[in-house]
Amino acid sequence: MKTQLMKMLDARKEEMIQIRRYLHENPELSFQEQKTAQFIVDFYKGKDMNVQTNVGNGLGIIVTIHGGKPGKTIGLRADFDALPIFEETDVPFKSKNEGVMHACGHDGHTAYMLVLADCLIQLKSSIAGSIKIIHQHAEETPPGGAKSIVDSGVLDDLDSIYGIHLFPTEPAGVVGYRSGYAMAGRSYFKLVIQGTGGHGSSPHMANDAIIAGAHFVTAVQTVVSRRLNPFEAGVVTIGSFDGKGTFNVIKDSVELEGDVRYMNGDTQQLIDKEIHRITSGIEVEFGVKCELTYTSDYPPLYNDPQVTETVVASLQSMNDPDIQKVMEFPMISASEDFAYYAEKIPGTFFFIGCRPKGVETPYFNHHPKFDIDEDALLVAAKSVGQVVCDYFKVD
Amino acid sequence: MKTQLMKMLDARKEEMIQIRRYLHENPELSFQEQKTAQFIVDFYKGKDMNVQTNVGNGLGIIVTIHGGKPGKTIGLRADFDALPIFEETDVPFKSKNEGVMHACGHDGHTAYMLVLADCLIQLKSSIAGSIKIIHQHAEETPPGGAKSIVDSGVLDDLDSIYGIHLFPTEPAGVVGYRSGYAMAGRSYFKLVIQGTGGHGSSPHMANDAIIAGAHFVTAVQTVVSRRLNPFEAGVVTIGSFDGKGTFNVIKDSVELEGDVRYMNGDTQQLIDKEIHRITSGIEVEFGVKCELTYTSDYPPLYNDPQVTETVVASLQSMNDPDIQKVMEFPMISASEDFAYYAEKIPGTFFFIGCRPKGVETPYFNHHPKFDIDEDALLVAAKSVGQVVCDYFKVD
Amino acid sequence: MKTQLMKMLDARKEEMIQIRRYLHENPELSFQEQKTAQFIVDFYKGKDMNVQTNVGNGLGIIVTIHGGKPGKTIGLRADFDALPIFEETDVPFKSKNEGVMHACGHDGHTAYMLVLADCLIQLKSSIAGSIKIIHQHAEETPPGGAKSIVDSGVLDDLDSIYGIHLFPTEPAGVVGYRSGYAMAGRSYFKLVIQGTGGHGSSPHMANDAIIAGAHFVTAVQTVVSRRLNPFEAGVVTIGSFDGKGTFNVIKDSVELEGDVRYMNGDTQQLIDKEIHRITSGIEVEFGVKCELTYTSDYPPLYNDPQVTETVVASLQSMNDPDIQKVMEFPMISASEDFAYYAEKIPGTFFFIGCRPKGVETPYFNHHPKFDIDEDALLVAAKSVGQVVCDYFKVD
Amino acid sequence: MKTQLMKMLDARKEEMIQIRRYLHENPELSFQEQKTAQFIVDFYKGKDMNVQTNVGNGLGIIVTIHGGKPGKTIGLRADFDALPIFEETDVPFKSKNEGVMHACGHDGHTAYMLVLADCLIQLKSSIAGSIKIIHQHAEETPPGGAKSIVDSGVLDDLDSIYGIHLFPTEPAGVVGYRSGYAMAGRSYFKLVIQGTGGHGSSPHMANDAIIAGAHFVTAVQTVVSRRLNPFEAGVVTIGSFDGKGTFNVIKDSVELEGDVRYMNGDTQQLIDKEIHRITSGIEVEFGVKCELTYTSDYPPLYNDPQVTETVVASLQSMNDPDIQKVMEFPMISASEDFAYYAEKIPGTFFFIGCRPKGVETPYFNHHPKFDIDEDALLVAAKSVGQVVCDYFKVD
Repeated sequence: MKTQLMKMLDARKEEMIQIRRYLHENPELSFQEQKTAQFIVDFYKGKDMNVQTNVGNGLGIIVTIHGGKPGKTIGLRADFDALPIFEETDVPFKSKNEGVMHACGHDGHTAYMLVLADCLIQLKSSIAGSIKIIHQHAEETPPGGAKSIVDSGVLDDLDSIYGIHLFPTEPAGVVGYRSGYAMAGRSYFKLVIQGTGGHGSSPHMANDAIIAGAHFVTAVQTVVSRRLNPFEAGVVTIGSFDGKGTFNVIKDSVELEGDVRYMNGDTQQLIDKEIHRITSGIEVEFGVKCELTYTSDYPPLYNDPQVTETVVASLQSMNDPDIQKVMEFPMISASEDFAYYAEKIPGTFFFIGCRPKGVETPYFNHHPKFDIDEDALLVAAKSVGQVVCDYFKVD
Repeated sequence: MKTQLMKMLDARKEEMIQIRRYLHENPELSFQEQKTAQFIVDFYKGKDMNVQTNVGNGLGIIVTIHGGKPGKTIGLRADFDALPIFEETDVPFKSKNEGVMHACGHDGHTAYMLVLADCLIQLKSSIAGSIKIIHQHAEETPPGGAKSIVDSGVLDDLDSIYGIHLFPTEPAGVVGYRSGYAMAGRSYFKLVIQGTGGHGSSPHMANDAIIAGAHFVTAVQTVVSRRLNPFEAGVVTIGSFDGKGTFNVIKDSVELEGDVRYMNGDTQQLIDKEIHRITSGIEVEFGVKCELTYTSDYPPLYNDPQVTETVVASLQSMNDPDIQKVMEFPMISASEDFAYYAEKIPGTFFFIGCRPKGVETPYFNHHPKFDIDEDALLVAAKSVGQVVCDYFKVD
Repeated sequence: MKTQLMKMLDARKEEMIQIRRYLHENPELSFQEQKTAQFIVDFYKGKDMNVQTNVGNGLGIIVTIHGGKPGKTIGLRADFDALPIFEETDVPFKSKNEGVMHACGHDGHTAYMLVLADCLIQLKSSIAGSIKIIHQHAEETPPGGAKSIVDSGVLDDLDSIYGIHLFPTEPAGVVGYRSGYAMAGRSYFKLVIQGTGGHGSSPHMANDAIIAGAHFVTAVQTVVSRRLNPFEAGVVTIGSFDGKGTFNVIKDSVELEGDVRYMNGDTQQLIDKEIHRITSGIEVEFGVKCELTYTSDYPPLYNDPQVTETVVASLQSMNDPDIQKVMEFPMISASEDFAYYAEKIPGTFFFIGCRPKGVETPYFNHHPKFDIDEDALLVAAKSVGQVVCDYFKVD
Repeated sequence: MKTQLMKMLDARKEEMIQIRRYLHENPELSFQEQKTAQFIVDFYKGKDMNVQTNVGNGLGIIVTIHGGKPGKTIGLRADFDALPIFEETDVPFKSKNEGVMHACGHDGHTAYMLVLADCLIQLKSSIAGSIKIIHQHAEETPPGGAKSIVDSGVLDDLDSIYGIHLFPTEPAGVVGYRSGYAMAGRSYFKLVIQGTGGHGSSPHMANDAIIAGAHFVTAVQTVVSRRLNPFEAGVVTIGSFDGKGTFNVIKDSVELEGDVRYMNGDTQQLIDKEIHRITSGIEVEFGVKCELTYTSDYPPLYNDPQVTETVVASLQSMNDPDIQKVMEFPMISASEDFAYYAEKIPGTFFFIGCRPKGVETPYFNHHPKFDIDEDALLVAAKSVGQVVCDYFKVD
């Protein structure tokens, strides 16, 4: 079956590209992907599988392919939402939905997955087990779609789960993997510091919130520099210090917002605790009132080491000119809600090189000029296809 | 003449009040006081004096009263602009010009001065010298009117200059003075710190402007705490820290604005130099680009000690039931463009208590509920009248 | 009597100088002034007065001179201790007690006072009242001698008290005064910050006390820059940051010591409260343990305005070539335990110019090269004599 | 030969222990290891090898064993110096050299190596190539012995180099490895900040060095928190802030000392550059003079990935009850001058578990109570013996 699958995919490479271009031209924001979801559902019409729609907190779609015999169940996930970005590329299939862009490659994820799913449906009699295709909505916007799909129970029967992401640091032909913690978890915080306003010439009659805010910023640097194990990754960024006021009026309150990244739960908890501690200290030190909102969303992505090892061995054994290199990737500080699946189900998330040909320093995901080498779609389809075949031990 | 003047003023107390109420009802913003200026000019119509209009950078009016014999020339200044404040009082003559209010008492300054000027015109034959009444526009808004009037040369012949301000900390009947530096000078600065933006998860790819801004704020505290002579007054307030951004994007630039106060030129220069120094240091320390705009506007108000002593003696010698107490006032951290006159011409600026009867904690100047005891107008008129008489040695 | 007194003082100018030189050559540290006290007691032997020794917490001496008739009682205070300083002058009567020096002029204070006291004893029949000469020990070292003398009750019958200090900013012939708060009060604090030591390469296993200490230092600047009324004087100096350790070992604790100055009790309390507050904040913020010792010693010196006015008038009325100028002095940031007398008894403390002739920038009090123009001794004697005569209304 | 070697080592286990105990009882400080060096030289007397003494900048000893046939040359390194620590253990062979202790396990390194070397000498006819035993002096004290031995050229003919370290986190029987950067490089810096002293009450007359020092400390936190790639390890510890002074005297200068750690040359350069930059900024910002001494000593230890992989495979293939587990170790923030060898010669440095039996939380290297399970000596000897045999492909 494996050889057959690869041939089928080779034959449908152009179709993947066409689907991707259609999706690219018609991007939709997270939680608003009506047309995209309809497009996916339409694709499956008349095919031999089960489809569930409106799964989770949005437009999630679960396509179940039952094999010829009973057996284990695996999940394959592809996300389909776009970003609030004004596209700045020159491609002929540029976004028609102004201000919205598939700048993260989810168009490609969906395109390869549809074609792969169709092939698997055709070959399903050879499979002893089931495959659930998870077309996921709303990856870009917390709380994301993944957690709600997991919580819905629809994946409770999964034995293993896989996903990929297009990544422009490497050319098409490269597949990247990382065992263990691979992508960052993140938290968000908002700190409102309430002092007392007053006339600029009379500081003693007021309580300057900008002063307290500045001391918070300098103190918070010690979380990463002194509290964190130097061999652990962690970031605390204060991205917003909203203290705009009038030059000669002492500011009564400021609002700070921050972003926290970490590669495991211990670091998550450490930073959470320390930011709360510093906030309490600032409150006492400057006699201000602090309101801290601190929420964690996507957890760090943990690729099951055993699953990852199996996948790597499987990929390395491919003798396919389209798959030129399987390499370990460094940890990535971006976050990914695939992490919610991987918390519950042993799985791995891997990376598909997509650097446009002839480009040395590609635009990164989320850039208005982000672009891909469409050859990467076939690489994705074949890689995931290979993993499926080897999982079900069909040759 | 002095007795006669005082009697005339007593008789016209009600007129002062009516003028003040008219002006209060019709306030105009700095540099836009067309109707007010016209009202003043109209008041002088048919009187024996010279009037110059459009003096300085706005609607300044100089009224010259020539005495019966030649002699010295003194200036008496009253300002006439209002503030961009929504009046919140319940007086029947509340502002009809919504959003504009005589919340600093300039209506009262002009009212007493017009009546006093008229009396002096009537008595001028007894005077050996001249009097210039300076009806000044735009005291509230830098660059103010005073400097431009001085620069116009129209006051070059002045030997001495006087002005007063209504002040609600004391009741009507109190006249306050202060020799030497009496009101603060001030500077304004704007600091734009330019770093490099970036993704919140990758601080090493960016240069966080909020960090540099926070260090500027903490460092700037040392100007007052360590650089300034503890016996000198100085204030550095950063009233605005505009670093609003997106929580997970490293801020590329922030804009700070500040207000500086001081009681003499040495402190002015010290703070100016130190803020420039710290800015240069931050630039090097954090590798950011700093653009500092630093401008000084109204200088500290310096009351000539000899003139002040003479005025105090003159006021203390009054045996008038309306003038109950002549007292030294503390330094005031507010600023006043009378300071420009006092830089060039020996003079003194004094304070007329105006706390409404029955009120313990009055609303301060610039408050939407600022109100005065109108008895203070007569106190002002008599005090300045006394100073004029004693200056020209007429009894 | 006044004329007679002045003549007597003129005649004994040389004696004052000789006494001063003897004392200068034989300085003794605070609380150890045995020889000096003995010298003073010996001076009074056989004279018509009462002497009390060992007054207060050391070697204080009270000499009571009863006038010819009953009346009020005034106190005249002169201190007699020296400092732990290696003298670096070239005077022939340089300190023989190595490492100890009369570098603050107390030798001169005692010298003029002894001669003045002797004269007053001789003239006492003309006086309706009593004079208590307070030869005070231990002014230089907290808790000082003054408080204990006050507490002993021996001055409970005083109606007024006077003291002077030699001051090198002005030449001999100048007498300086200041009404109200004239010299600073002071507090001392010690802050021990206890963190947890550890290896320099593992900050997460330790809790770095140097970090917490540095944040305390930066935060404490806001006490003066933002909490204090800009028109009030206040200083917070951290003179010692003892965090010496090994470069690659995280410091477990640091010890900071500081000095606080203020001109009135409100500022004293404000700074006390704020330093406690910041300490509590740092404790929370950095999870360290802080031990703060905070003690106030000499209060601000308050010269009774009415007494000062009377003294100034008295001095200004002198027609004596030795007293050339009576001038207001600025506030002084040094402290003086005369403040304890002035808290209980209306009095004034004034300044006697002593700048060596021909010197433009004199060495200040406490400098190893501090020196005086000995003409100042006669100025001191005459000034205080004048005050005494006028107090008792004897001409 | 391999089986024979293992048998010989088994037989001489007790001898290793006795040698280790002798060395433990007679520790010597870096660069002063005369007796230890003599003991080593004596051990080799009469054996068939070449010995070179006084190699490098101290008492380094190179023992060359020529195999039966020509071939490649490998190096085996064991260090032999002790530490300035007062031993606090209760072992019967406690240090007799008070204040000096083998608290890092170098006694064990030397002990196993002597016995292994003797065995290899006896078996050398089976080897096609040469072995250089590097008995290295002065590992503990920069500049260390390794760099000078490398610089001497005596190892220029080496094709590969190996070393081990006893490590108490794991029990005897565990061998730890790490490919690539495995132990930290380090730099030392000293910063003298020169301000201007003065009286505590007059900050404006001085320039407070403690203030500048505190701002340096807070600013330096941003090097790790904002300049460093979050996925790279780096530490900046300020271990000493020497600002001890008198509470009421403004400190004229402070001296800070710091320790820097990093896992590669890029991070080394980044931190070096940033600390210089912040220093320059502080100099400008506070108008102080900064003298920064910044020196890097041991580089990060880089284990050649290919060599490491070969060694791991070799160790994993052992079927020896003494070698129970071969595991990857995390990066270690301590430094090791083996790094100098590894910079020039492909090699690997691995770890031998030595946690005392029955102990859960062992004392770490450099602790006065550091102790080892002496079974680890045999583990070390067999592991290194295995690597040698496999290198020369002798079974």
